[in-house]
Amino acid sequence: MAKKPTIIWTKVDEAPALATYSLLPIMRAFVKHADVDIEVRDISLAGRILAQFGYVPDDLAYLGELVWKPEANIMKLPNISASIPQLIDAVKELQSQGYDLPDFPENPQTEEEKEIRAKYDKCIGSVVNPVLRQGNSDRRIAPPVKEYAKKHPHRMRDVSPKSLSYVAHMKSGDFYENEKSVTLKKDTKIRYEFVDKEGNVTVLKEIELGMGDVVDGTYMSRKKLKEFFEEVINDAKEKDILFSLHVKATMMRVSDPAIFGDAIRVYYKELFEKHGKELEEIGFDPNKGLIDLENKLSKLPPEKQEEIKKTIEEIYKKQPRLYMVDSDNGITNLHRPNDVIVDASVPAVIKNGLQGWGPSGETDDCVITIPDRSYATMYSEIVEDIKVRGQFDPTKVGSVSNVGLMAMKAEEYGSHDKTFFPPADGVIRIVDEDGNVLMEHEVEEGDIYRSCVTKDIAIRDWVKLAVNRAKESGEPIVFWLDHMRAHDRQLIEKVKEELQKYDLSDVEWYIKPPREAMKFTLERFRKGLNTISVTGNVLRDYLTDLFPIIEVGTSARALSIVPEIAGGGLFETGAGGSAPKHVQQFVKEGHLRWDSLGEFLAFVEALKLAYKQSGSTNKRILIMADTLSKAVGKYLDNDKTPKRKVGELDTRGSHYWLARYWAEELAAQDTDAELAKIFEPVAAALIENEEKILEEIRATEGSPKDIGGYYHPDDAKAEAAMRPSATLNSIIDSI
Amino acid sequence: MAKKPTIIWTKVDEAPALATYSLLPIMRAFVKHADVDIEVRDISLAGRILAQFGYVPDDLAYLGELVWKPEANIMKLPNISASIPQLIDAVKELQSQGYDLPDFPENPQTEEEKEIRAKYDKCIGSVVNPVLRQGNSDRRIAPPVKEYAKKHPHRMRDVSPKSLSYVAHMKSGDFYENEKSVTLKKDTKIRYEFVDKEGNVTVLKEIELGMGDVVDGTYMSRKKLKEFFEEVINDAKEKDILFSLHVKATMMRVSDPAIFGDAIRVYYKELFEKHGKELEEIGFDPNKGLIDLENKLSKLPPEKQEEIKKTIEEIYKKQPRLYMVDSDNGITNLHRPNDVIVDASVPAVIKNGLQGWGPSGETDDCVITIPDRSYATMYSEIVEDIKVRGQFDPTKVGSVSNVGLMAMKAEEYGSHDKTFFPPADGVIRIVDEDGNVLMEHEVEEGDIYRSCVTKDIAIRDWVKLAVNRAKESGEPIVFWLDHMRAHDRQLIEKVKEELQKYDLSDVEWYIKPPREAMKFTLERFRKGLNTISVTGNVLRDYLTDLFPIIEVGTSARALSIVPEIAGGGLFETGAGGSAPKHVQQFVKEGHLRWDSLGEFLAFVEALKLAYKQSGSTNKRILIMADTLSKAVGKYLDNDKTPKRKVGELDTRGSHYWLARYWAEELAAQDTDAELAKIFEPVAAALIENEEKILEEIRATEGSPKDIGGYYHPDDAKAEAAMRPSATLNSIIDSI
Repeated sequence: MAKKPTIIWTKVDEAPALATYSLLPIMRAFVKHADVDIEVRDISLAGRILAQFGYVPDDLAYLGELVWKPEANIMKLPNISASIPQLIDAVKELQSQGYDLPDFPENPQTEEEKEIRAKYDKCIGSVVNPVLRQGNSDRRIAPPVKEYAKKHPHRMRDVSPKSLSYVAHMKSGDFYENEKSVTLKKDTKIRYEFVDKEGNVTVLKEIELGMGDVVDGTYMSRKKLKEFFEEVINDAKEKDILFSLHVKATMMRVSDPAIFGDAIRVYYKELFEKHGKELEEIGFDPNKGLIDLENKLSKLPPEKQEEIKKTIEEIYKKQPRLYMVDSDNGITNLHRPNDVIVDASVPAVIKNGLQGWGPSGETDDCVITIPDRSYATMYSEIVEDIKVRGQFDPTKVGSVSNVGLMAMKAEEYGSHDKTFFPPADGVIRIVDEDGNVLMEHEVEEGDIYRSCVTKDIAIRDWVKLAVNRAKESGEPIVFWLDHMRAHDRQLIEKVKEELQKYDLSDVEWYIKPPREAMKFTLERFRKGLNTISVTGNVLRDYLTDLFPIIEVGTSARALSIVPEIAGGGLFETGAGGSAPKHVQQFVKEGHLRWDSLGEFLAFVEALKLAYKQSGSTNKRILIMADTLSKAVGKYLDNDKTPKRKVGELDTRGSHYWLARYWAEELAAQDTDAELAKIFEPVAAALIENEEKILEEIRATEGSPKDIGGYYHPDDAKAEAAMRPSATLNSIIDSI
Repeated sequence: MAKKPTIIWTKVDEAPALATYSLLPIMRAFVKHADVDIEVRDISLAGRILAQFGYVPDDLAYLGELVWKPEANIMKLPNISASIPQLIDAVKELQSQGYDLPDFPENPQTEEEKEIRAKYDKCIGSVVNPVLRQGNSDRRIAPPVKEYAKKHPHRMRDVSPKSLSYVAHMKSGDFYENEKSVTLKKDTKIRYEFVDKEGNVTVLKEIELGMGDVVDGTYMSRKKLKEFFEEVINDAKEKDILFSLHVKATMMRVSDPAIFGDAIRVYYKELFEKHGKELEEIGFDPNKGLIDLENKLSKLPPEKQEEIKKTIEEIYKKQPRLYMVDSDNGITNLHRPNDVIVDASVPAVIKNGLQGWGPSGETDDCVITIPDRSYATMYSEIVEDIKVRGQFDPTKVGSVSNVGLMAMKAEEYGSHDKTFFPPADGVIRIVDEDGNVLMEHEVEEGDIYRSCVTKDIAIRDWVKLAVNRAKESGEPIVFWLDHMRAHDRQLIEKVKEELQKYDLSDVEWYIKPPREAMKFTLERFRKGLNTISVTGNVLRDYLTDLFPIIEVGTSARALSIVPEIAGGGLFETGAGGSAPKHVQQFVKEGHLRWDSLGEFLAFVEALKLAYKQSGSTNKRILIMADTLSKAVGKYLDNDKTPKRKVGELDTRGSHYWLARYWAEELAAQDTDAELAKIFEPVAAALIENEEKILEEIRATEGSPKDIGGYYHPDDAKAEAAMRPSATLNSIIDSI
């Protein structure tokens, strides 16, 4: 393993791509003294398009192979998951730059068109993550970020002990209750079948699976769901608090819109009773939110429109007040299914003292409705904990990191391809290729049936990762698994089996159902102790928002690492996307406000992996990681993050500060005197030229910048715009 | 109201009756100086029998009228709830004493026999409490008992943070889920009807109810119950911990034996599969426990018996180990439905570090199975709280008292007269006299349907009592009511309505579902703060065991007060029964070990009520109460409770100490100098003659005592035996 380690830096899109022009030279200049190479690989939208047509090598394909090798060490910056309009735009730009690309065929007819379309299809949507993420998830707060939050806590509103807010969930009939699960005893192909009352069989889907894989099926009763909404809405009314629904229609994009639609069908029941015919005529689909009605209302004659609006007003008078997304503009919780996303919205309610905003802009207690009990109970636990023990204090709480089961699309309940709405009363069953019925569910027409698959290898790797994290950190690991859930029982068995392979003498481990895991974790959290949550994919998604938001105010500042199954590592940055508005501002007025904090932190981790990849011999790499981490601490402490307005400190200036603090730390460390010697003059020069450098940068602000392209900038132009300080450049280049 | 208050002292049976001969003269002698009368009323079994046949006035009938008057102030000592054999014994004894009583007619045939039988029937079973308890329940720990427990804590075993014990409850199909409830809008007669699939209607029962009364109906699905047992038993096996079931077959005496029986049907499934025919032949009823099989097994040929025993042994090898009632004698949790009673058994598991005893006498973690979610969740909360925060420390915890809804048979879910097992699939419905269907439940054959009734006046009185307790104590009151339960929603509405009638400016009140109420209460409890739980009848029963056992090691030392709806008060003593074994010991060797602590504590409360009944004018009564309470503190602190063995301190000696401490306190108080003057010489005489008095008592120990009857002692003989110290008697009689 004593190979010279190489870190891959991904070339991406928009703001992080621009920031790279300034940041990468600094990183390279520093780490070359630790004998670490940085190699750039292009996964930008433009790069992916050009690769499809042979203009450049296919770096994504290259990385797709690399992640299955132990030497993979990839800094994955945020890139564009392109919509079709974005793709068309990008193609136009590339054509204008002289690339001979065919137009995007909206309706491909000829063989040639179809071939072109197939190539473009490979560039659309989320195509990078599924290739690079060949591992489970390791998410945590880096020490400097945690330290910063303790010194500069964000605001958490107090909670009254008389708060009436609570999490409401179903008593029965939900996915939690109906789950069944099997572990496959051999490789097989399974099929999902619907059998109607007459015995007619329809095959819904077929998939290939391997021995040891876990297959689940479950369903939610729509009848019980509606009864539940009725009950909760009445209770909100009775208590005179806000009604709110928290789902994840963006991810569970087949099941959750249906749940959302049912909330509308119950809350606005009178609307459907009085105007059912008209609503059907105009094609109102409640699953798309009340906004769909607003959009389609104009199809009706004005007097009908008025009648309907009046009915809605009357409903608002009778029903409990709705939790508002935007009370100024009358946007309610039930307007758009994607507006209130449980993983972000519940933490928002918590930060806001267990309150939401009502129709008149008032803050008030609210029913937090999360129908399915699989995860609602852990939210209930934290909400009730706050009511009893008070609001969390970011200066005192510990840290809850996460090891999440994510590899190979583990537990993707949201997968639309295995969610079905039975067309009639009947049975949905899963049958293997030998005709054995693995499980079956008696369902009613319209119930929400969904299934998910978890690969054996992914589960075993996840346990390994958890044990490794426990050993590295000395913190307890808690598997959030519920012995009363069929799927979790399969996992518990594998976890116990797998744990036996490790020396656990220095590992404190637990298996607890979500509510109890939350209780255990919160007790430690409030005492300032750290705990590692080891969870399935959905809880990974929920908890990696929940705790970072409580701890440091945002989940965007958490480290997001994918330790690849093959042994390498993927370091993801930028939970906030690739920030198109930042680019617009930069082009217009020469000010970039992208904060590279995520890149700094990820790079620390990439360096730590590089050290391991060096055979744990090259101590200089560790010094690099350690000093960079300290530099980030100073960066935060002295508030050197980019500011919003032109003329203030921007991304480029912030990189100066990082380089300076890092050089100072390297010069100050005494583990490697030779290395210190190298960086002493660098630090001195950076300090001495502080004003000059910042002025050289500031001087370029306020005027438009030409970067030679939005999706495919001209490297020379972009670099010139992003490295405007000759003084800084010469110091960096001379290191 | 400025009437001279009279406290009723009930003449009862067995040990407390004997103790009264010694204690009552002391109480009378002291309180006459506060102008309080003590009047004796006979509710003993013998007294009730003699009253039926005109030998003595019917004191129970008298008290039945008195409790509906504000001047009622009754010390209710424990008496015999007679079984038929006990009644026959008592009749024989009375006949031997010369009373001309007819024999008990086992099979009455003639009119005369039937009349006699009717009279005796009025003496059988629990006939006193239903007459005297015309109010809700006020239970708490008296200050001296709490102080004593803090100084001399009982043992609570530590809990490992890795404990695998947990409370298992159903996910659906239980009473909790299916509950429906209505508040009657007018006086009416309701009937319970079963409607089969063909529409045939059977009337199951009819009852008269009043406007404002709350009627509930619910059922438990036997199918889901069995699936649940299957799941839990497998989980216990998987975790290799003990399986235990906790029900209350003694109180819920129709529904809970059926639940118990299903646990047997699932745990011993193989037994029924292999030997179903034979088990049916011999009439084995699993609802009566495995003991029923053991009792009936001899009806089978020896080789069959062996086969069955072998099957059972094999089952024990395959199934999880059972929680044992008595591992020495192989008595399991599933042997007798009455052996493991949830309100006492769960606290026992808690005291024992969340562990039970297994088949080999080993202690181990256990699944605590409590099928119905109505109350299981609050047990789950306390168990999980202990796992996370550690065992309770009796020297530090606060106190949780209870105001329980009990009046007029409120919420008696246990009532066998409204529990039904549908004879086939169909509907059970409740219909009022106008033919309106108040509610209906679709049930399957054998499901457990039950209904209960709560009287409006009882609910309103309960709220009043809670507010009064809050004002008196300054402690917060928490109504344990669940907005997701139909019955509780009816109550919440009434509670909110009722609370508006009071000035709540000095009252801290909450309404919380049981799990959250427990969480809130425990947080305070662990901080040493007191909280008043305001609950329905079942939770009253459960919590008044749970918290006293944690706080002071036993619920027998808690005060049990029934503030009568009419304004008077009933002070109950002796949760431990009337102790027949104590009487046997006294008769045999002249040593009585009845501890009158309950009487002392109740008398303090009776005096406080007497003060109020004096128009709150006679301060001397308060001084009496206050000094008696302090005397009890000394009594406990100096460990003057009766000991078990002959020659040690007994009940009579313990009364000497109480009288002495009380006299000392009265002499020492400076609120009423005149009163102090009266008791100075008394205290001095008691101190001076300590050795003499105790020796006079001790001298009578070791020899048999003749008290002239077991059920109907001779007053002169019993008094002589119980007041053997001439020195003490002359001091007391001279006060």
